[in-house]
Amino acid sequence: MSSLFDRSPPTEPSRANGFSGNRLHRLSEARPQDAVARALAQPASRLHLFLGDRLLLDFANGATRAFFGEAEARSLGLCADTLILLGTTGNAARLAAQVDEATALPASVKAIDLRSLAIQGLIDGEALGAVAQARSLLAWHANHPFCARCGARTEMRGGGVRRVCPSCGAEHFPRVDPVVIMLAVDGDRCLLGRQARFQPGMYSCLAGFVEPGETIEDAVRRETREEAGIEIGRVAYHSSQPWPFPSSLMIGCHAEALSFALTPDETELEDCRWFARDEVRAMMEGRHEGGLGVPPRMAIANRLIDAFLEAEG
Amino acid sequence: MSSLFDRSPPTEPSRANGFSGNRLHRLSEARPQDAVARALAQPASRLHLFLGDRLLLDFANGATRAFFGEAEARSLGLCADTLILLGTTGNAARLAAQVDEATALPASVKAIDLRSLAIQGLIDGEALGAVAQARSLLAWHANHPFCARCGARTEMRGGGVRRVCPSCGAEHFPRVDPVVIMLAVDGDRCLLGRQARFQPGMYSCLAGFVEPGETIEDAVRRETREEAGIEIGRVAYHSSQPWPFPSSLMIGCHAEALSFALTPDETELEDCRWFARDEVRAMMEGRHEGGLGVPPRMAIANRLIDAFLEAEG
Repeated sequence: MSSLFDRSPPTEPSRANGFSGNRLHRLSEARPQDAVARALAQPASRLHLFLGDRLLLDFANGATRAFFGEAEARSLGLCADTLILLGTTGNAARLAAQVDEATALPASVKAIDLRSLAIQGLIDGEALGAVAQARSLLAWHANHPFCARCGARTEMRGGGVRRVCPSCGAEHFPRVDPVVIMLAVDGDRCLLGRQARFQPGMYSCLAGFVEPGETIEDAVRRETREEAGIEIGRVAYHSSQPWPFPSSLMIGCHAEALSFALTPDETELEDCRWFARDEVRAMMEGRHEGGLGVPPRMAIANRLIDAFLEAEG
Repeated sequence: MSSLFDRSPPTEPSRANGFSGNRLHRLSEARPQDAVARALAQPASRLHLFLGDRLLLDFANGATRAFFGEAEARSLGLCADTLILLGTTGNAARLAAQVDEATALPASVKAIDLRSLAIQGLIDGEALGAVAQARSLLAWHANHPFCARCGARTEMRGGGVRRVCPSCGAEHFPRVDPVVIMLAVDGDRCLLGRQARFQPGMYSCLAGFVEPGETIEDAVRRETREEAGIEIGRVAYHSSQPWPFPSSLMIGCHAEALSFALTPDETELEDCRWFARDEVRAMMEGRHEGGLGVPPRMAIANRLIDAFLEAEG
């Protein structure tokens, strides 16, 4: 079947994106009602703990530890009603929970946001992937305690794979929001924009949520038209990335520009322009004369730009 | 940039999938609060009307009409509180709404489900795409009248692009659920399964929801492992399809099998097996000796199977 897979290089592009290293076995369909209690009863089980949006890391003895045993978790202020089961690795279960913000942490334990974790490479890709899953699920449960159908309070089931409404019987599943992120290209130049909230000088790919009733390719065209006024022809899928802020699936594409005059949406973008390949290469390599740059390597936008630089001109 | 787009054939595969023809301008970000009222005030505006999940079609005078003017809509039992604005086409707005089930319909007006519409080709692809958008949005509003964060009743805004909670201020956006659907292949054979709810003899691709914290490729591997016990290596994106039952984004892939002994999940699948290319071709062409078949042409599963048949062996 060679021709079906000509499109896939030996090293899968999605694997190079941050947060993509999750290898836990989720067993989402086959979980008992008391999945969390059973997992906690296993001595080898470990927990990822979050203080708000940030992951707790223990730096004691020169190590960097991203998970804790149950007794340790209780001493750190475990909020037992937030406990979810992520999955298993080998014979050990991996869980996640929030900790109480009022608990004093030992000096060796720090709370670090997930962007910094991914950029600095403080934990390995497999742990970072599990942490991304945890962050998305914990945020969804925290922000969805009520039934959207009838307004009653819902209850977690299956160790966090769903919530059920005891009043109307509705089942609710964690949300994953598909987002298209695209690098529009025109020969030797590509289109980058910046939002006001970006760090100074950083330019990135355009992006937006897929809406009901459209394909990935049409979402790429609509978003590029809405944000930059540029018409797009061919669209090529590149890779995908779980993005735990709070729970997006980034779908990265290259997009062939068919029009070139920019009319940026000034409510979305502070600036938007065409960049020549050489200038983008300087931005990528941190040697741009005007101090402009691109997102860090862990971001799918960086990988889309890198593929553009590597492609034939 | 030829090498970035070598992957895209001149005819985009997603365009061949049913429900993908939507060409309305949604203008989701730039809508006034009274978007529906303004749209209704334009004489050229038209409405897609739904009786439950089914679209109203008017077959009067030998035509097949999938939309109605406002006065007609009122005579058919328009439920004004369900009105949403889909977008514009040319100078005309396109809206959608439910009608009251108690209203008697004229003899020329029939309610038809969206699968039948797509299979029978009763309306053109552009209208079918708009109808898919309408069905997903109407279902979301109908099933999400309360705030999942605080339990209060929410209110529609921007002609249906979001709901806001007057109690806690939360904004809620229509949901799009990414689903991977994949054809696992091993040289000259491919893996097809059937659910008990399928029509007799029909076999299709495996599929499942993308979960928080995984890439598209890893979702393909997890679902194929969970449902069939087959390990997957390379994964190649083929095309995507909006699937309005109620609001999925189908992400179609080919998947390279690395193991071959089937251990089907019997709660999900009634049967699952390897089919040789010649047998699949007979199923596709409606001449299988045992009466087996595949999904209709409008389904992305059919297009994935077709691409396998067309690929070099």
